[in-house]
Amino acid sequence: MLTAPYALQYEPLLLAALAEDLGSAGDLTTDAIVPAAAHARADVVARGPGRVAGIGIATAAFALLDPAVSMTVAAEDGTDVAAGTVLATVEGPARALLSAERVALNLLGRMCGVATATASLVAAVAGHRARIVPTRKTTPGLRTLERYAVRAGGGADHRFGLHDGILVKDNHILVAGGIPTAVGRARDHAGHMVRIEVEVDTLEQLDEALALDVDAVLLDNMRPAMLAEAVARVGGAALTEASGGIDPTTVRDVAAAGIDLISTGWITHSAPALDVALDVTV
Amino acid sequence: MLTAPYALQYEPLLLAALAEDLGSAGDLTTDAIVPAAAHARADVVARGPGRVAGIGIATAAFALLDPAVSMTVAAEDGTDVAAGTVLATVEGPARALLSAERVALNLLGRMCGVATATASLVAAVAGHRARIVPTRKTTPGLRTLERYAVRAGGGADHRFGLHDGILVKDNHILVAGGIPTAVGRARDHAGHMVRIEVEVDTLEQLDEALALDVDAVLLDNMRPAMLAEAVARVGGAALTEASGGIDPTTVRDVAAAGIDLISTGWITHSAPALDVALDVTV
Amino acid sequence: MLTAPYALQYEPLLLAALAEDLGSAGDLTTDAIVPAAAHARADVVARGPGRVAGIGIATAAFALLDPAVSMTVAAEDGTDVAAGTVLATVEGPARALLSAERVALNLLGRMCGVATATASLVAAVAGHRARIVPTRKTTPGLRTLERYAVRAGGGADHRFGLHDGILVKDNHILVAGGIPTAVGRARDHAGHMVRIEVEVDTLEQLDEALALDVDAVLLDNMRPAMLAEAVARVGGAALTEASGGIDPTTVRDVAAAGIDLISTGWITHSAPALDVALDVTV
Amino acid sequence: MLTAPYALQYEPLLLAALAEDLGSAGDLTTDAIVPAAAHARADVVARGPGRVAGIGIATAAFALLDPAVSMTVAAEDGTDVAAGTVLATVEGPARALLSAERVALNLLGRMCGVATATASLVAAVAGHRARIVPTRKTTPGLRTLERYAVRAGGGADHRFGLHDGILVKDNHILVAGGIPTAVGRARDHAGHMVRIEVEVDTLEQLDEALALDVDAVLLDNMRPAMLAEAVARVGGAALTEASGGIDPTTVRDVAAAGIDLISTGWITHSAPALDVALDVTV
Amino acid sequence: MLTAPYALQYEPLLLAALAEDLGSAGDLTTDAIVPAAAHARADVVARGPGRVAGIGIATAAFALLDPAVSMTVAAEDGTDVAAGTVLATVEGPARALLSAERVALNLLGRMCGVATATASLVAAVAGHRARIVPTRKTTPGLRTLERYAVRAGGGADHRFGLHDGILVKDNHILVAGGIPTAVGRARDHAGHMVRIEVEVDTLEQLDEALALDVDAVLLDNMRPAMLAEAVARVGGAALTEASGGIDPTTVRDVAAAGIDLISTGWITHSAPALDVALDVTV
Amino acid sequence: MLTAPYALQYEPLLLAALAEDLGSAGDLTTDAIVPAAAHARADVVARGPGRVAGIGIATAAFALLDPAVSMTVAAEDGTDVAAGTVLATVEGPARALLSAERVALNLLGRMCGVATATASLVAAVAGHRARIVPTRKTTPGLRTLERYAVRAGGGADHRFGLHDGILVKDNHILVAGGIPTAVGRARDHAGHMVRIEVEVDTLEQLDEALALDVDAVLLDNMRPAMLAEAVARVGGAALTEASGGIDPTTVRDVAAAGIDLISTGWITHSAPALDVALDVTV
Repeated sequence: MLTAPYALQYEPLLLAALAEDLGSAGDLTTDAIVPAAAHARADVVARGPGRVAGIGIATAAFALLDPAVSMTVAAEDGTDVAAGTVLATVEGPARALLSAERVALNLLGRMCGVATATASLVAAVAGHRARIVPTRKTTPGLRTLERYAVRAGGGADHRFGLHDGILVKDNHILVAGGIPTAVGRARDHAGHMVRIEVEVDTLEQLDEALALDVDAVLLDNMRPAMLAEAVARVGGAALTEASGGIDPTTVRDVAAAGIDLISTGWITHSAPALDVALDVTV
Repeated sequence: MLTAPYALQYEPLLLAALAEDLGSAGDLTTDAIVPAAAHARADVVARGPGRVAGIGIATAAFALLDPAVSMTVAAEDGTDVAAGTVLATVEGPARALLSAERVALNLLGRMCGVATATASLVAAVAGHRARIVPTRKTTPGLRTLERYAVRAGGGADHRFGLHDGILVKDNHILVAGGIPTAVGRARDHAGHMVRIEVEVDTLEQLDEALALDVDAVLLDNMRPAMLAEAVARVGGAALTEASGGIDPTTVRDVAAAGIDLISTGWITHSAPALDVALDVTV
Repeated sequence: MLTAPYALQYEPLLLAALAEDLGSAGDLTTDAIVPAAAHARADVVARGPGRVAGIGIATAAFALLDPAVSMTVAAEDGTDVAAGTVLATVEGPARALLSAERVALNLLGRMCGVATATASLVAAVAGHRARIVPTRKTTPGLRTLERYAVRAGGGADHRFGLHDGILVKDNHILVAGGIPTAVGRARDHAGHMVRIEVEVDTLEQLDEALALDVDAVLLDNMRPAMLAEAVARVGGAALTEASGGIDPTTVRDVAAAGIDLISTGWITHSAPALDVALDVTV
Repeated sequence: MLTAPYALQYEPLLLAALAEDLGSAGDLTTDAIVPAAAHARADVVARGPGRVAGIGIATAAFALLDPAVSMTVAAEDGTDVAAGTVLATVEGPARALLSAERVALNLLGRMCGVATATASLVAAVAGHRARIVPTRKTTPGLRTLERYAVRAGGGADHRFGLHDGILVKDNHILVAGGIPTAVGRARDHAGHMVRIEVEVDTLEQLDEALALDVDAVLLDNMRPAMLAEAVARVGGAALTEASGGIDPTTVRDVAAAGIDLISTGWITHSAPALDVALDVTV
Repeated sequence: MLTAPYALQYEPLLLAALAEDLGSAGDLTTDAIVPAAAHARADVVARGPGRVAGIGIATAAFALLDPAVSMTVAAEDGTDVAAGTVLATVEGPARALLSAERVALNLLGRMCGVATATASLVAAVAGHRARIVPTRKTTPGLRTLERYAVRAGGGADHRFGLHDGILVKDNHILVAGGIPTAVGRARDHAGHMVRIEVEVDTLEQLDEALALDVDAVLLDNMRPAMLAEAVARVGGAALTEASGGIDPTTVRDVAAAGIDLISTGWITHSAPALDVALDVTV
Repeated sequence: MLTAPYALQYEPLLLAALAEDLGSAGDLTTDAIVPAAAHARADVVARGPGRVAGIGIATAAFALLDPAVSMTVAAEDGTDVAAGTVLATVEGPARALLSAERVALNLLGRMCGVATATASLVAAVAGHRARIVPTRKTTPGLRTLERYAVRAGGGADHRFGLHDGILVKDNHILVAGGIPTAVGRARDHAGHMVRIEVEVDTLEQLDEALALDVDAVLLDNMRPAMLAEAVARVGGAALTEASGGIDPTTVRDVAAAGIDLISTGWITHSAPALDVALDVTV
């Protein structure tokens, strides 16, 4: 089930983006050229093929600028579209359509880009158990929307941030002086609703972590053969997550190792935006 | 001269990003494992080669979380670095270093990514007059920082948003019923400090715009030969800007046409992030 | 064309003003005396003659306090009205009308005051080419609305702030060590959409600036005869702006010198408010 | 005793004003021309004579922009200064001095203007018991600072807003159906710390109000002779406040009638700003 | 008359509470289990007996989350209800009902708790002149709503905060060096709409305060016999307020001493919440 | 380990509370009576016995109002103190001490109240395995601080809100049409870091939940004998949490049933505040 965030979770972002583009002086070009009474209709169109995400969220920018704008969605989030597909149609005061266009498209292009990149990885691991999950390597301020886009792309959730899951990483282990101490402290501190995952770089570390009965292990930067060995050692006693160097060319081999989860920052920090545009009819 | 934004322009973004990652419950892992009194030192390191941008801005996240963190910059914005280069060193309470790490790196990686992409285009057009400029296709909420990163990459400025320049685009022309009406209205409305640029798709439109004595023309999606013809027709009477389909493989041919400005959204909406990391020493 | 700001540009100001007046405890008098069910109708009336500005913006305060208030505008922004003219009529819950009255009138009186002062200068220069423009000497937080009021008064726009135009002033020249260095640095740094204006105090400085081919010159505190000489020297090669000591008694002589633009802070920082009132009918 | 607001009461206003002027792109002129390392010193100077108010508040803008700016106040709030007087000296990074100049001066000029106008009224009523008090006709968002300026001008306080005092006005009386009902409801509702004042237009209304034992009466738009008669009827049983048409030419006659308080919106909504400037030394 | 705050006074609190509970990731449970199209109806029910306060305010949380939720109030603020009473019914998207439930109930339970505690004190002093009033010992951020709840419980208002009344307390007297100096300074500084109350611990201090003709005296921590003696000494020349150690078991004896006002922090800082729940029908 | 939130998590709350108390007009009493130069020292004292929580957080209010205030903590969070114990000493400008006093004490009293109530339950279950955990029945806006106070009282964490744990409650089961469907949907939707707990009212429901291999079961409103039977049936296959009707008189019997976790809203929504005061020395 693909559940969109409530408007109160993304409206502040859209308002800030509109303020960023309009400044205090407003849209000089549109205000000069387009009469206040002019009415228009416009299609939001995908210029390239991709997976839709954020069509209702991003296009809410139009009605935020002017409540007289109405909108009809033609391609729901989570669907694949060909180049040229109309994703939504907006209609209302021409000024609002032109002045909010870039804000809506910037957000939509980014969200579709994340979804499309995710979908490509999901497709690449088809037939394997692995689920594609995001990391915390997201754009500052956009994590809720980028993670929603990952789900629209067929990915699953990881912890959202530092506050809703324990992931013991190399630096924690360094400070604690070892995996057992680090995991022990984490377990003492953690509430009963929190899962504990430990990042390991070697099979020795993996054995240490498994001996502590953790919920999941993050196998960092291991090659497929070593991942397969790790999966074998875990033997279902914990969830296995692989990360490091994941992209469309490498992901299938990782999945083939039998990994449960494959996480990658690439889908959020480096995925190219989908090319989306607004075709206006006066 | 590379002028960084004042802290009051980017601190709200960092605070929001910290809040996004820490949530209300804070960093469960670090709070559990790292003693409050633990002190650490860490290097911010580039894992790949690239152009630095945002080193002082992004790493301000550490001191925002805990004012006891101090910082020394080793590679200034605007410099090129090899993989493995230490960009800055931070020192202070270990908890703050670990809890703010991801926010600092997410922003730094993105800014360096934009600068690196820009620098690659700037290098590609070396020897030609063309300057690389950004578009308004930036990440919602990050335009100030992404444009600063473009400058760190050797690019120049375009208008910032809708409020500080008039760019008459196809839809404005459509609503106005023609370039002369659109430009006329723009000129009547515009203050004397505002420049007027007109987007044209054909040489006929170009002639129309030139007849109106506009400050600049945006030659949209023209091929190099047509760009050269356009530059010839303009004959120095206006600035020429080319856009559409610009990337490292196409940019040199565009520049060779004698264009003044080359704008591309690619450097802001689709540039891959630079891989940056935090190496901690206890 | 008189283009009003979008509500999202002025609503925060109205909300802050309502909060300032209502505090946390609300309107003690109205809450005590006026029943929740009482309904009223009220006219917003100009007590003196003037130019209308902000009628729709300022009276939005009523509906922000209670969405059940409706409003009809009788005198549009930009029109001249005689004392006693009804500018708008509001109708709805009596409490909201009385509790938001002062906020609406404070803003309306100020905006009409700015428009009226501007209109008096515009009238004074009738027959001359000069346009009246505002400065940055506006009320903190109200610049968007005060500049809109200037336009309602028949004035034109200047740059909005420090971010959308380059105005090289005496202190910049002092730091740079001369006009050529200052303008040179400005030109190197400025994007192609930015105009450059230089403030000059003497005819020698004027010649220096003209030699640099700047877009406009600000002739500061020159007397009419000297202004005429300056206009002659410029000879159409740049826009001419006069400032300093402009008020209704001096403006015509300045305009007569052939100046393009006359800027004055008086219309925003010292214009008396128009007397506006709310006449309630139960 | 002149008590300045805490910084947390005015800093948000200064930050908003800086954001308004700097926009997202910053100070184009200063950033281009002034090197980051340039240091300067500047005097804040009164160009005309007046009463100082806000010298510490307004000039806090410099250090908000850059904490490296230091400040020394030379003329405290509440003092009278001649034209040419140095009010304060600021020193630090030249960029911050130039970029925050206008924000600081706009606020200072306005506050000194209010104080100066108030002081002129206070001087005009010297020898009489009357105190000059402000109304709620203040600039949206600036009430705290404008009322502080009134006190710096020698004025006293009125209620701050709708929330901290009951002032029964004509419309309340209209809705309630008469003064006794209105005052009765106010008294039932009011907490024991709240004073009740009633606005009256006629001597008959005055008698009605006095019979209800109110704390103060607002004598609206009465001529001096009628004010004197009103004062006689009150006979010290309530405070008397006069309002309507108060300015420097009329205030003394009103005071001579023996009034306790004279309120006027003129000092806040229409007082001309004091001319203040920044003289920079490199 | 029970006057509810305007929505703009409490909506920010509800939005913050929703954000606190939903975080950035939203309601994981409801999003997973409840289909977007599911519709539900639910009763807000009092599980125990009490006085209603905040039914319209607290339940506004549902519609803030999703404007498609409608609401009908069954038991108005200020009424007493038995256990099991339906206070309101909400209807709309099931997700919004479940996701906003806790925010609405947390606020409602607290407000009803305050009202119920207040009502118990009001009932306890029935037949005496004393009114029950709140102190400033309220929950940070909730004072407007807790004081509204006090009024719903039959209590009256005290000053709202530090800004709308003068209450000279022991520490002020200590700093000033005595009651006469403290009251003298207060009177010099206070506007004419401000009442002055003085806290006294002894009858000697009471005499001192009375000699200064203050508006009210706060008799702090006096036993009933001493309170009666104090009331006698005051003899109607000032309002008398008793505080310290007030609870349902002690309040009647205090009232019997003839006190005008009884203030207690217990009703706001320590009143148990009323048990309220949401009974959902699919 | 007791980990306090970062200042950026609680400073906005303190600033809002100061604004609530000071309003726009400030502290009328202190501003009138206490000279700006007066310096004072004050002890924060517990008037009753209790568990300390928030001493550093709440007293940060003083320095937020005036950075010249310094503070020394004498009794750390998590310690038990007798009546009369000095918890901290603050020193600085007397105005700031008096004006921020109530905000600091209101928050401190509430946090110590929560910690003290929690500690009383923790003490009551000594010798049993049960840990005391909070619910989401917290004060709107204060959840981070109240949960921190619970930990200072010896309690453990539950999920923070709706966003960081799945708790399938009666209404979810109702909408889904049964526990298996509800848990199935939850499992499909949940990320791998999320634990799933199910609320059950009967032993039949318990068996259903256990068959689904959930992480924890919430045994709602069961009597001790039934709890013991439930614990036996679970047999360590899931964590057991008891809730409903928990208070100091009932908690020990619940713990004796062998429950892992006991949750109660009483410690946050109805715990009486600890009486804390500020003893000032001039």
